[in-house]
Amino acid sequence: MKKLKRSARLVEMTQFLLSRPHTLIPLTTFAERYGAAKSSISEDLAIIKEVFEDEGTGELQTLAGAAGGVKYIPHLAKEHALEFIHGLCEQLAQPDRILPGGYLYMSDLLGEPGIMNEAGKMIATAFRNQDIDVVMTVETKGIPLAYATGAQLNLPVVLVRRDHQVTEGSAVSINYVSGSHKSLHTMSLSRRAMKEKSRVLIVDDFMKAGGTIQGMVDLLAEFNATVAGVGVLVESGSVDNDERLLHDYVSLANLTVVDPRSKQIAVKPGNYFDL
Amino acid sequence: MKKLKRSARLVEMTQFLLSRPHTLIPLTTFAERYGAAKSSISEDLAIIKEVFEDEGTGELQTLAGAAGGVKYIPHLAKEHALEFIHGLCEQLAQPDRILPGGYLYMSDLLGEPGIMNEAGKMIATAFRNQDIDVVMTVETKGIPLAYATGAQLNLPVVLVRRDHQVTEGSAVSINYVSGSHKSLHTMSLSRRAMKEKSRVLIVDDFMKAGGTIQGMVDLLAEFNATVAGVGVLVESGSVDNDERLLHDYVSLANLTVVDPRSKQIAVKPGNYFDL
Repeated sequence: MKKLKRSARLVEMTQFLLSRPHTLIPLTTFAERYGAAKSSISEDLAIIKEVFEDEGTGELQTLAGAAGGVKYIPHLAKEHALEFIHGLCEQLAQPDRILPGGYLYMSDLLGEPGIMNEAGKMIATAFRNQDIDVVMTVETKGIPLAYATGAQLNLPVVLVRRDHQVTEGSAVSINYVSGSHKSLHTMSLSRRAMKEKSRVLIVDDFMKAGGTIQGMVDLLAEFNATVAGVGVLVESGSVDNDERLLHDYVSLANLTVVDPRSKQIAVKPGNYFDL
Repeated sequence: MKKLKRSARLVEMTQFLLSRPHTLIPLTTFAERYGAAKSSISEDLAIIKEVFEDEGTGELQTLAGAAGGVKYIPHLAKEHALEFIHGLCEQLAQPDRILPGGYLYMSDLLGEPGIMNEAGKMIATAFRNQDIDVVMTVETKGIPLAYATGAQLNLPVVLVRRDHQVTEGSAVSINYVSGSHKSLHTMSLSRRAMKEKSRVLIVDDFMKAGGTIQGMVDLLAEFNATVAGVGVLVESGSVDNDERLLHDYVSLANLTVVDPRSKQIAVKPGNYFDL
């Protein structure tokens, strides 16, 4: 126990809460930690709550009663999210991103932990009131976003592999069709990685028709697990609706045009903002 | 600009600093943000600095002069690091982790964003005073630790791929020898992912003789980049010293015994604590 002045206690509590999202902290934890009365702790929490809400960085949920306490729910305000996504769209639309085959180079942006954390906060905001047990993605490029989302929601991340790895133990494999060439691929998930009946939030960096994500959905069925939601960083809006395998998802950005000949790229905010 | 009471300002500044590690923030930024005198801001920062240092969660470096300001350097105190690593060692030593071939199942621990963030904070602490441009890892299992480290150091993450991917553009590939079977593998890095002469911190989840990491070192030579350091979550201590390809690295945990027959696993804290 440490006796702190209110000013120092506020700094310490802010730090404590920010590093424990979606975790119920009993008031007694704070009261004992600082040797303070619960009434003082409640006053501190009211100050923190007001700042978080004014800033649009999160909610502080207070649960009354014996099992009560306080829970920090990270939250990215719509205006901040929109500002962030406009910046991301601008960067994605740089003409030198176009690669042979009409692919878009995104690895530099996926390599910025700051961008991934903001994007993860957005997905965590969209699904903050859902009942979810685990975040899942398939290697490789969706991994940072899945972890950023998992960190904000205080959930573990499960990784689907493209091949069966010796370090994963026994695994369940499925085949799935992906890409405009309708090519056949394999993905595999370790038996011990996913509990039966888990509720799963699927996260990925990019979605076109949705073949890869549909593969993950099929894989989950093998574990009697269910999909609680799907969140992607960028969707390709150039897919015909009848080609689309998946309709219920949240996208942060929408890539509407990639024209290798004219070097034109157009990106707009995703369906996140229609919610 | 928002006028805040000192109590609210402390909460806001704490949040602001924690989300911007290794970033110089001029005092005028705070003074303008809160419509407060620089002297008040300095007093606030002194309170925050004291809490961070007492908690062992970070330093607040103050740079005087016209280009001055304040910089938050995340830091995990040795006692907290040791407590965390003891817990990790205990989890790693659970007998049911042994897989056929004597491999150790670690994916559940690698899937915990909280564990990855603490481990990343440790590596960031070890290298916090080094001149580093970028964090690098090779897919797949080192990715979360690399991002956690990059986030704490405010550095981008560059990903080496096992195969050349169409979404990476032109790439440089090398062959390397890894594993006890001395098998030959390929790794590849996108040309545009790494600037010439970058100073690189290599991060990975596991190291035995160091073949994979030596591969990354060789790959960096192709970019005229240099290795600023190597950090691994777990090293295998069961390697003879003359078999070891790499001697200069930081490990958080050391796996000394994995015996599939007796189901015995022994793990101790890594060389991190000898520094």
